[in-house]
Amino acid sequence: MKRILLLGAGRSVSSLIKYLCDNAPAENWTIRIGDISVAHLQPLTEAIPCVDIMAFDVQNGRQLSEEVGQADLVLSMLPAAFHIVVARECLKQGKHLITASYATPALKELHAAAEEQNLIFLMESGLDPGIDHMSAMAVIQRIQAAGGRLTSFKSYTGGLVAPESDTNPWRYKFTWNPRNVVLAGQGTAKYIKNGSYKYIPYHQLFRRTEAIYVEGYGDFEGYANRDSLSYRELYGLRGIPTMLRGTLRRPGYCAAWDALVQLGLTDDSYTLEGAERMTYRSFVEAFLPPSTDAKQSVAERISLYINLPADGEVMEKLAWLGLFEDTPVALAAATPAQVLEKLLKEKWALAPGDRDMIVMQHLFEYEIGGEKREASSTLVATGDDEVHTAMAKTVGLPVGILTKLLLQGKIKRSGVLIPLYPELYEPVLEELKQHGIDFVEKERLVQE
Amino acid sequence: MKRILLLGAGRSVSSLIKYLCDNAPAENWTIRIGDISVAHLQPLTEAIPCVDIMAFDVQNGRQLSEEVGQADLVLSMLPAAFHIVVARECLKQGKHLITASYATPALKELHAAAEEQNLIFLMESGLDPGIDHMSAMAVIQRIQAAGGRLTSFKSYTGGLVAPESDTNPWRYKFTWNPRNVVLAGQGTAKYIKNGSYKYIPYHQLFRRTEAIYVEGYGDFEGYANRDSLSYRELYGLRGIPTMLRGTLRRPGYCAAWDALVQLGLTDDSYTLEGAERMTYRSFVEAFLPPSTDAKQSVAERISLYINLPADGEVMEKLAWLGLFEDTPVALAAATPAQVLEKLLKEKWALAPGDRDMIVMQHLFEYEIGGEKREASSTLVATGDDEVHTAMAKTVGLPVGILTKLLLQGKIKRSGVLIPLYPELYEPVLEELKQHGIDFVEKERLVQE
Repeated sequence: MKRILLLGAGRSVSSLIKYLCDNAPAENWTIRIGDISVAHLQPLTEAIPCVDIMAFDVQNGRQLSEEVGQADLVLSMLPAAFHIVVARECLKQGKHLITASYATPALKELHAAAEEQNLIFLMESGLDPGIDHMSAMAVIQRIQAAGGRLTSFKSYTGGLVAPESDTNPWRYKFTWNPRNVVLAGQGTAKYIKNGSYKYIPYHQLFRRTEAIYVEGYGDFEGYANRDSLSYRELYGLRGIPTMLRGTLRRPGYCAAWDALVQLGLTDDSYTLEGAERMTYRSFVEAFLPPSTDAKQSVAERISLYINLPADGEVMEKLAWLGLFEDTPVALAAATPAQVLEKLLKEKWALAPGDRDMIVMQHLFEYEIGGEKREASSTLVATGDDEVHTAMAKTVGLPVGILTKLLLQGKIKRSGVLIPLYPELYEPVLEELKQHGIDFVEKERLVQE
Repeated sequence: MKRILLLGAGRSVSSLIKYLCDNAPAENWTIRIGDISVAHLQPLTEAIPCVDIMAFDVQNGRQLSEEVGQADLVLSMLPAAFHIVVARECLKQGKHLITASYATPALKELHAAAEEQNLIFLMESGLDPGIDHMSAMAVIQRIQAAGGRLTSFKSYTGGLVAPESDTNPWRYKFTWNPRNVVLAGQGTAKYIKNGSYKYIPYHQLFRRTEAIYVEGYGDFEGYANRDSLSYRELYGLRGIPTMLRGTLRRPGYCAAWDALVQLGLTDDSYTLEGAERMTYRSFVEAFLPPSTDAKQSVAERISLYINLPADGEVMEKLAWLGLFEDTPVALAAATPAQVLEKLLKEKWALAPGDRDMIVMQHLFEYEIGGEKREASSTLVATGDDEVHTAMAKTVGLPVGILTKLLLQGKIKRSGVLIPLYPELYEPVLEELKQHGIDFVEKERLVQE
């Protein structure tokens, strides 16, 4: 009997719970699930004998210690900031850990101590980070094993809506943490192109998109992620001349999001004065130069200020959000980003029956035997409904499969790990296919 | 005999030293000056009997303690971050302190303890902050005493070059900390206009300038400072509908500086890769989208990217800086802002004989006896040469005059103070006139 402790059971955990429950009888697992509130978990887990549920607060050190003490393996799906607390407790009590979040510097510091106790702290085991690493490494290592030399690697991921649920002018709905979507790209994006480092400041980011086409799903646009450079080392591509990681949206999204950035509405660095009396219209007006013409509408003033056609698609998207309407914001104290998030949560919610869609595309260029070749590896995964989303599947299933590998004793490495090794990613990618998460690979010779 | 300890003797201290030396015999002062390097101080102070000079390191706690112990009053003209260290030592040893820098929250925390010991910690006693407060309060308190109600207060200050030294296309040279000029405006500018709060993000700041005219000196443009709101409280103008503090430049500067902001060259948040191999041209290229046309010049690419006329005044200013030339940057590791600062220091240096110019303009609107009136108070101060600058005079002289008032026992308040009180600012403004630092006031009835 192996005891799995799953901490944190938010939006993206439904598929992980289902996977764990499905495998529990054959694998002889018991599963204990803790979340700050448990009511929403009842329908997912009731009548499953090997699962129990508890109210859990990670900031209650005694509860954390007791629960970790009774487990063989801890899965932390808590907000990212809490993983380090859980990891330190796991280290103290000699327990393994899996998360779907980045191996932060604080976590990496535990590597030697975890390794010494033969503990596995497996990080970055979800979708992005997770499946992105695993699927990219599968291609990279195959090209390198055949003697190829990679000259370019670009990788884009987007959490979007399936075509049949693509029903608003932004062609976007939330399937992931809304706050992270609002703050996406803040800072400077860094990448390398043909051996030259490139820097994109935030206020240019959503203007410098690249067109991406996915067969059967049409056109997308990608904007650069903040950090594309550190992955060179991680993927064993230290000298690669071109490397870019990016985020996918449907065409038109980025130009409209750029308008919000240009206005200043995504700023999270200060609290607005008098937010409690604001409407969405007065919120937007606070960012516009004072008007000398009382008859000018907010839309006309935006159009003049940030140089947008008054009747264009961007303005249509802004109007659709309700930004020009006198609806009260109804927040006591808020940053601009928080006001925007509140509005977007209403407008971009998945409706009952809506299906989401994950799109991931890796684009490789390499030289082999004197030839230049291109390869691509593309995943499109669609959700079942607004609860069993593609996001939940692609984040949860790799964590579940790695849980099985770990408890079966098939992971021979220890310490703080990322699934960059064939013995980890090969069985995960293989089993994901059974769940419909399958990459389509293409390759072609480039005619000079 | 009163012993004055002056710590920090950089660029802006020449006039303060002269003032102290001139007054020392009559006031019976001795003056001890400490700076990290003292060679440049010899010509200023040699053959003056009451002054001595020492190499001083504020981070040497023992030296700080010994020197403060022997003083009656400490003047700290060190970089702003060190004032708190000096202030704590003054508190410990029961000594008065004057600085020309902002009363930070850390400093304000010492208020009660200083007051209890009857110590005077007089902050914001230079130009900006300093003369700006004093000259504004003189008008504000006069209007209020006459029963007027202020409806608008705008205040602009600029450290510029005198007309005869205004010899480059930017119409700007450094008379102040170059780093602060490069980073100016980062964050969000906040002000209030006709009762509505207004927010200007950094990437719009240098586009939203206001035209300012100063009789005899011509046209200027002003951009908003980061914080205009907290001064309402400070100046006793809590309910004022319009309040803005800003920075003055000559027309054309802001549009060209905006181009640097749009490109991302003023970013100080990350270190560039491979700065040691960069030229100024490749530095700029790192911020441009990859070009598909090898024949395009950097200037043409900038023109397309940020939508500027290729043969316009902004491009001329960028070219004049040498940003398109293959001159090595020659920095080992640097942020974009540091690269830019290095270049600007070479291009915007005061030449021998150059004279600088301080311009400060306060604009008031108020209602009195059923009438609407406007008032302005304007200072233009010109330097003698590139050492005895207007900046040095306007920063140093108020510190010197307040030193005299303090040591004569004329400051009755204690604790952490700002010179907002008539008994402080009236004698300072009066004595400044003798040094040619004199505000011109105007007033007129507004015809409805």
